[in-house]
Amino acid sequence: MADRSLIFPAEEYRRRVDALQRRMARAGHAALLLTSAADIFYTTGFLTRFWESPARPWFVVVPAQGAPIAVIPGIGADLMGRTWINDIRTWDAPDPLDDGVSLLIGTLREVAGAGAVGTPMGLETHARAPFATMMALLEAFELCDATAIVHRVREVKSEAEITKIRAACAVADAAFADVPEIVRGERRLDQVFRRFQMALLDHGADWVSYVAGGAGQGGYGDVISPAADMPLRAGDILMLDTGAVKDGYFGDFDRNFAISAPSDAALRVHLALHHATDAALAQLRPGMLARDAHRIMARALEDLGERPCGGRLGHGLGVTLTEWPSFTPRDVTELRDGMVLTLEPSAHVYGDCILVHEENIVLRADGPELLSTRAPRDLPVIEI
Amino acid sequence: MADRSLIFPAEEYRRRVDALQRRMARAGHAALLLTSAADIFYTTGFLTRFWESPARPWFVVVPAQGAPIAVIPGIGADLMGRTWINDIRTWDAPDPLDDGVSLLIGTLREVAGAGAVGTPMGLETHARAPFATMMALLEAFELCDATAIVHRVREVKSEAEITKIRAACAVADAAFADVPEIVRGERRLDQVFRRFQMALLDHGADWVSYVAGGAGQGGYGDVISPAADMPLRAGDILMLDTGAVKDGYFGDFDRNFAISAPSDAALRVHLALHHATDAALAQLRPGMLARDAHRIMARALEDLGERPCGGRLGHGLGVTLTEWPSFTPRDVTELRDGMVLTLEPSAHVYGDCILVHEENIVLRADGPELLSTRAPRDLPVIEI
Repeated sequence: MADRSLIFPAEEYRRRVDALQRRMARAGHAALLLTSAADIFYTTGFLTRFWESPARPWFVVVPAQGAPIAVIPGIGADLMGRTWINDIRTWDAPDPLDDGVSLLIGTLREVAGAGAVGTPMGLETHARAPFATMMALLEAFELCDATAIVHRVREVKSEAEITKIRAACAVADAAFADVPEIVRGERRLDQVFRRFQMALLDHGADWVSYVAGGAGQGGYGDVISPAADMPLRAGDILMLDTGAVKDGYFGDFDRNFAISAPSDAALRVHLALHHATDAALAQLRPGMLARDAHRIMARALEDLGERPCGGRLGHGLGVTLTEWPSFTPRDVTELRDGMVLTLEPSAHVYGDCILVHEENIVLRADGPELLSTRAPRDLPVIEI
Repeated sequence: MADRSLIFPAEEYRRRVDALQRRMARAGHAALLLTSAADIFYTTGFLTRFWESPARPWFVVVPAQGAPIAVIPGIGADLMGRTWINDIRTWDAPDPLDDGVSLLIGTLREVAGAGAVGTPMGLETHARAPFATMMALLEAFELCDATAIVHRVREVKSEAEITKIRAACAVADAAFADVPEIVRGERRLDQVFRRFQMALLDHGADWVSYVAGGAGQGGYGDVISPAADMPLRAGDILMLDTGAVKDGYFGDFDRNFAISAPSDAALRVHLALHHATDAALAQLRPGMLARDAHRIMARALEDLGERPCGGRLGHGLGVTLTEWPSFTPRDVTELRDGMVLTLEPSAHVYGDCILVHEENIVLRADGPELLSTRAPRDLPVIEI
């Protein structure tokens, strides 16, 4: 096998594929079919923003033994040729008559014979290929759910991966430090969002796949909207949430800023969220379940008389902005040494007005190690 | 129906949904299920970068008559509530026991009864929901391919959409004008990529979903790779390709720059690509097929003795970086008045070293109207 590779030494990818293959053997899967940008980057090192174009499907087939086979559009041959993958099969895509389907079926037949083909089918996954292509595979093979196989391997990060995520977090830390200056120069929320993205790039992000946030009197109603062209006002709480990428790895944490005079309620809830995060930082251990993390943070908020938001209070991250597990009351995923996670407690200030606080950690045997620089206990105030 | 809406007046979305419903009626589909960011933005105005998180599926159900129904994670209720959609059904996602599946099946049952449910299954589409969820739908409904229904409606842009795409192109035009100054300040390719993204934001992009490019002696081997930390050298051709977003709409065109002394071969091929683009600008008309656009540009290159690259020589664009049709020898999609398209001829300089040239147009009854500012005929030279 080739020793050339991208982002990491080839050995890193070999270890990942070996780990997948051990689980495939236990599940009785003769091949593993991967279609997502994240799974393909994870196993091969193939990193490109070209996934933004929905025109072409891409496939990686992991056999029971040996290196993966790439079954991809010709436009990707050059880049895939620079990874550790040697067996690269291409077609001239997009082809309305046969967009890689027969090439993929032939490859799977060669690798799996009449055996089972696993592919992720469950929560937090989707098949990034035409549904008609997936139905053709259903006809040709015994397709099995490989969600757990992929998740149990990807969720524990190597030290090399943790180093990458730490670097992405450092970029965000540096950009957050610029926010007071940005806000004093630009009062409009959409302009603050633009300048913040520029700061992330200036501090070394390769690209900025995600920035969201909100601003409103004493809190915000929404954390996923694009920025409106509204001016920031005294009494607003401004929240910025990052998803800057460095070498294909994400950081994902937010910071809150009070614009001039914060309300007592906002100060109180921010302090409670900081406290709930401290509780998780102190108590989380490998062997706990994802729902335990939810319980620790929700109880810490309730003990202070605050009302936690619905949804999740944290999640995994790595080669995507968010990964499983989800800190909800129902997620029983075991927390393991080496998982990179966000602690993201949120609570209501009044009605539907909320605050969200977030840090990134790696879970170690003796508890969480911060990857983001811990937010200050008191809500920072930007005077305008 | 509500008159509030995001990005466009509600009437724009109503017209789109009416057009889908007319085609649904002809196809005999009782409901249309949409799962992708683009289709959901197109029908509702729901615009967010939160799609970057693969954790949750999102669904929009278009009934035979009336407004769409949103079946979405609770975290999106606030933003969806600001669109023209009134019927918003949410669940507390991610839920490992039932992540919206029963809510979606109940909604489809209510809307479609025992009738057929269409959803895009074909080329340039995928179902952005767990494959297990899609298989549950296959069991519960007669699922039909609605690719053509969605494509024939989305591919013809309204004047309101064309205005948005023109604005996105203007952002890229302004950023390309900064490239000589950027290159004189930053010699390393990855730093040029960063500064170029910052320029796009500075000139008004809401975010930068795509930047790719290449650089090499006399041309480049690859147009989808992230930038390496290599220095630009005299004789390199630098290409930058944008996908900056403004109000949810993309521009997508590239520009080439010679670093100091370009080779005769690079100058010759660049001129041929410019000429091939001129040929398409002069000859393209509604009623032609996508393959005719390929033929016009490929022949223009061949007549000058150049060798066109494989793959496509242009494509649609709009709410995604690339849309159908594809200018390949096999694509028989009819070109229609109001389609927004890229003309993207590419040719070999030597071996696998290529140059790519790109413009954005809207096709009118009397031919193409440029949305990007036409690139100069002679390759611009940046002296370093």
